[in-house]
Amino acid sequence: MVKIILDCFGGDHSPQAHVEGGLRALALIPDLYLILTGDETQLRSCLQGRDYDAARLEIIHAPQVIGCDEKPTDAIRLKRDSSMMKAIMLLRDRDDIAGMVSTGSTGALVTGALVRIGRLRGVIRPAFCPLLPTMSGGIVGICDSGANVEVDAAMLRQFAIMSSLYLENVYGVAHPRTALLNVGKEAEKGDDVRREAYALLGETAELNFVGNMESRDLLSGSYDVVVCDGFSGNVLTKTTEGTALELLKKLKKDIYSRWIYKLGALLMKRMFMEEKEFMNYQNYGGSVLLGTSKVIVKGHGSSKAVAVEKCIEQAYKMEISGLGPKIEAGLAPYEHYEA
Amino acid sequence: MVKIILDCFGGDHSPQAHVEGGLRALALIPDLYLILTGDETQLRSCLQGRDYDAARLEIIHAPQVIGCDEKPTDAIRLKRDSSMMKAIMLLRDRDDIAGMVSTGSTGALVTGALVRIGRLRGVIRPAFCPLLPTMSGGIVGICDSGANVEVDAAMLRQFAIMSSLYLENVYGVAHPRTALLNVGKEAEKGDDVRREAYALLGETAELNFVGNMESRDLLSGSYDVVVCDGFSGNVLTKTTEGTALELLKKLKKDIYSRWIYKLGALLMKRMFMEEKEFMNYQNYGGSVLLGTSKVIVKGHGSSKAVAVEKCIEQAYKMEISGLGPKIEAGLAPYEHYEA
Repeated sequence: MVKIILDCFGGDHSPQAHVEGGLRALALIPDLYLILTGDETQLRSCLQGRDYDAARLEIIHAPQVIGCDEKPTDAIRLKRDSSMMKAIMLLRDRDDIAGMVSTGSTGALVTGALVRIGRLRGVIRPAFCPLLPTMSGGIVGICDSGANVEVDAAMLRQFAIMSSLYLENVYGVAHPRTALLNVGKEAEKGDDVRREAYALLGETAELNFVGNMESRDLLSGSYDVVVCDGFSGNVLTKTTEGTALELLKKLKKDIYSRWIYKLGALLMKRMFMEEKEFMNYQNYGGSVLLGTSKVIVKGHGSSKAVAVEKCIEQAYKMEISGLGPKIEAGLAPYEHYEA
Repeated sequence: MVKIILDCFGGDHSPQAHVEGGLRALALIPDLYLILTGDETQLRSCLQGRDYDAARLEIIHAPQVIGCDEKPTDAIRLKRDSSMMKAIMLLRDRDDIAGMVSTGSTGALVTGALVRIGRLRGVIRPAFCPLLPTMSGGIVGICDSGANVEVDAAMLRQFAIMSSLYLENVYGVAHPRTALLNVGKEAEKGDDVRREAYALLGETAELNFVGNMESRDLLSGSYDVVVCDGFSGNVLTKTTEGTALELLKKLKKDIYSRWIYKLGALLMKRMFMEEKEFMNYQNYGGSVLLGTSKVIVKGHGSSKAVAVEKCIEQAYKMEISGLGPKIEAGLAPYEHYEA
């Protein structure tokens, strides 16, 4: 049995989407055991009348909710009875639990994970690694996308090793093509951190380092993993999502402006629905936190049932693939670079 | 007469697009005087048989071209007879010339401008400010988009003042809504530089500072100017352009996959052409370098005639709006913050 906690509150569609997504994951994965944290009355009411394997579902009551605008350090100190903090404490205290999924406050989750859960051996700082779809039908991982706004070259190398192992072991990508986000292709581009990282990545035998990537090429399909500081990684990820969403909105608005366009769009309805699904981040799971001693997956705040289900699947796959021990082994040769 | 130099080489469509764009600008603006730099034989051959006001067009022969992959410091030192360096030296030496437009190497242009042209009084570092179209039909300026990969808070405030004045005086945007690019809306988000900049921007009376902007909202139309370091500004700009281009490519490919989609697209042909034009950066001019003592506009390397024309118009408007003196006046109250 793989035991995973699902923090059912703090998301836009809590707790309905979480219960629904959780039940779907339970039906899909026979050896999954799910622990829901949150207000028990509300969770029981969502479960009422549903058909599921009750022997693999547990509820831990947690009446409080951490809001997205709460200060992380206050939230983890003062809201010990929140669905997220209960989940984090359970994950810390119980050896039989493999990981957790949350769609709540990113700041509180990162702070809570760092302070209460801790890191894998050798990890300087955990980092987020969300996935985006590429135009060649694959995926690309972005690491770090926001956990660390300031980084050094040794951290960037660790992000590269961790995210390469993630793509390889959880998504079956052989020798992930790993690039460094920069303002140009040439080795000397960027600041000192980038230039040092370029050299470090190049001399790391375990990596398939393919050089600098300019942000305009993110979706081209030429890269499997992009390594960056959390500030520019956040900009890279959110700009891609934002641009895709705004363009789809504009397309829709323009279609409704003339009847002939509406007619044309009717013929293309299926295609437009496929485009929409293609660009829907809900289909690509959450942003996993790499480097913590237990599996932690952060779903979008706006996650619906399908996204919650994907996040649980991700957490499950990370655990059964043995990613944690593999990351420790992968980082071991470079421990002397630690800060 | 407003005299502007056009560096006709170093672009993908040099020199045809430049000569064509230059002639269009000459026809459009009666008091524009254009100085073309580049290989005279090639330029004369492009001009042959064309109808234009020869009294407002001058050619300065420059046989060399700076390539995009040349090291900027070497290029400006060794290629004094290049179209770009000739332009920069003319701009420096002749008081009657207002500015220059180039579609060549960004690195060489920035280095050349810094070393040979110099800054307006009070400017710590010049910064690029390209424009992108927003979904509400307006434009948004991004400053800095790549001239300075490392910044401090005082520089970010200067970028805000310079780009606000640019949008206001050259594009008629009243009280430009000015935001700081960050990983979240809250004042305490980001690193120390961001937090300090947030405070500085808030206390700058001349600015209409509206707080932090998350990158997903860039195209929303809620902001006129976004202030950032050159690294993340480059990521913001290039990711937006890259995502839009990749999505358009995907749409086109998918349309061709089934005859019914092709039929639908036929009915929507005009709409798709408008979308394409909307997302075509060639229509929005170049990335202006704010803070240099003379006007400098950098066009995309792939600029065609229409883009070159827009860049010349931009340079002209910057000069006649008196942007330079206005920037000096705008920065004057904050000189004590200089590094």
